[in-house]
Amino acid sequence: MYIMIMAGGVGKRFWPRSRKDRPKQLLDIVSDQSMLRLTYERMKKIAEEKKIYIIAGQNLAEVINREIPELPERNLIIEPSGKNTAPCIGLAATTIIQKDPNAVMGIFPADHLITDIRAFKKAVNQGVQFARDHVALVTFGISPTRPATGYGYIQVNTKEPAHKDNIFKVKTFAEKPNLATAQRFLASGEFLWNSGMFIWKAENILNAMKLFMPEMYESLQQIGMAIDSPKYQTVLKKQWATIHNNSIDYGVMEKAKNVYVVRANFDWSDVGSWDAVYELQKKDKNGNVLIGEIVPIDTENSYIYSRKNLIAAIGVRDLIVIQSKNSLLIVHRNESERVKDLVDLLERKDFSDHL
Amino acid sequence: MYIMIMAGGVGKRFWPRSRKDRPKQLLDIVSDQSMLRLTYERMKKIAEEKKIYIIAGQNLAEVINREIPELPERNLIIEPSGKNTAPCIGLAATTIIQKDPNAVMGIFPADHLITDIRAFKKAVNQGVQFARDHVALVTFGISPTRPATGYGYIQVNTKEPAHKDNIFKVKTFAEKPNLATAQRFLASGEFLWNSGMFIWKAENILNAMKLFMPEMYESLQQIGMAIDSPKYQTVLKKQWATIHNNSIDYGVMEKAKNVYVVRANFDWSDVGSWDAVYELQKKDKNGNVLIGEIVPIDTENSYIYSRKNLIAAIGVRDLIVIQSKNSLLIVHRNESERVKDLVDLLERKDFSDHL
Repeated sequence: MYIMIMAGGVGKRFWPRSRKDRPKQLLDIVSDQSMLRLTYERMKKIAEEKKIYIIAGQNLAEVINREIPELPERNLIIEPSGKNTAPCIGLAATTIIQKDPNAVMGIFPADHLITDIRAFKKAVNQGVQFARDHVALVTFGISPTRPATGYGYIQVNTKEPAHKDNIFKVKTFAEKPNLATAQRFLASGEFLWNSGMFIWKAENILNAMKLFMPEMYESLQQIGMAIDSPKYQTVLKKQWATIHNNSIDYGVMEKAKNVYVVRANFDWSDVGSWDAVYELQKKDKNGNVLIGEIVPIDTENSYIYSRKNLIAAIGVRDLIVIQSKNSLLIVHRNESERVKDLVDLLERKDFSDHL
Repeated sequence: MYIMIMAGGVGKRFWPRSRKDRPKQLLDIVSDQSMLRLTYERMKKIAEEKKIYIIAGQNLAEVINREIPELPERNLIIEPSGKNTAPCIGLAATTIIQKDPNAVMGIFPADHLITDIRAFKKAVNQGVQFARDHVALVTFGISPTRPATGYGYIQVNTKEPAHKDNIFKVKTFAEKPNLATAQRFLASGEFLWNSGMFIWKAENILNAMKLFMPEMYESLQQIGMAIDSPKYQTVLKKQWATIHNNSIDYGVMEKAKNVYVVRANFDWSDVGSWDAVYELQKKDKNGNVLIGEIVPIDTENSYIYSRKNLIAAIGVRDLIVIQSKNSLLIVHRNESERVKDLVDLLERKDFSDHL
């Protein structure tokens, strides 16, 4: 089994710690190790190291090499630019199939948190077996523990497992719901969180791309033929420029008929915002997470981070405060999704020293 | 008339901008000039420059000279250490009376804000005239415009002016009231805000000190005899060490029988907290005061100051945020009085680099 760690994200929601040259997956936001390192270590438990690949943009190559120095040079696949998950996975599959036409590959984002390795390993093994034996696109659905509105959902018919008790044919994908809908999803027992992790034969995902994204498939074919030749970079750049941004969900998964989901019970978070980071951390008796030289007075349920300045807080409730380099963010915990909008605003206003 | 600007305060409530070597009165918190400069300019409108003195601790001598370079060297009176207002005023009176036994002196804190110079000048002139003609300790009471709980009050019998319509004998001094009491004070029409500004003959305040603070008076006599002699510094230090901390209100004003108040109508603020600064400033349409590189999203009724870092705020309400040097303060507007407690805590915890 080949592993492809997608490490190309930007992670705008983690500004001001995430910057253009150090996105979320390279930050130690959930432990004292970077999310990429945590993911790499997790993958070492389920695959041989030489079969673990990382795919990311050129701008991150150096920092990834520093973060995972043991990664063989050939195991870092470079995207000329970020084009969302479909082209990324297409390039990964095109690269892997050159090495092994029968390769089964797992796709895992670098910036998700999973701590129950045993349950993770069990679910992955089930997925690998199913993907090896079937013309199937296998995704992972997490049994929801609360009516989360920040995740997409996958609907299955729980009464008809496709394989053993744990693998189901996907009925529909559902967008992030509102709270009432999320509560209905949870109550029905038919919905799982869409984790964005996949397992399939490289051959099968490329065939699905041929069917649903034929232009991209054609470009990928050109790129594939150039692999290991001197003109690879030239062909890659030329073809990549013609490929449209698209997510694997929109581009393939929601259209394909042969999509299956492994129902998994491991703890999982996509760590999608500063508030999610707050929720994942151990709090002190006032419900605070305080990192760095922080002096709180009458301050509750807040996340305050500073490696530089002293931060004193008086009478503060439900805030996230992040000091990093030349910038400081103060955001109400309920609003932490909007940090992305803020970064977009900073881009428009040309605050390039702060991005 | 001699003017004594008391510039010796610490201004802990303005941390992290106020520091040991740059207290509140040296900060440009209410305009683009320091409060000391604003006060000095105001005093130039009512007295000759050579008769304007500043009194402060040795640690502030250099920064005061830089702030008011035109101040004659002899017009800066140095307190060996801060001992509250009674010793400060005692030393000032002792110094002035050496120059002019009949001197009338006005005492003005360096850190109050008054913008209506005309009304101020009128009230001071009334006070000077009364203090010249009577054995009277004259204070200034501001006609209250709201039931403020942050000020002390002075009660007078409004039906019996002691002089013209505007000068009254003081009945009592009242401590900072709670809201209900402040509302009663306001409704009665008998209470004025205690501004902490005074006018009297140097002779009369020293006589009051002789009566109510005889030990301090004795020390001041020793100091007075040494003025202009080579042993002045030695005597000052020795005597000063024996003087107890005390405020002029507790030490003299609340005990003396000859206390009068000029009822003044000028705008006045003692600028007692960051929230007071916020209240004094012009707000934008969201009720914010934003100074420096500040990027607000959905942020209201807040004061955010940074000359260094960019500060982004999302979903923030009623906060004061101050970035200064190596420290950042975040305090709810209702809690800004407690910044003083915070500074005390930092002192106890030996955060000396931040004080």
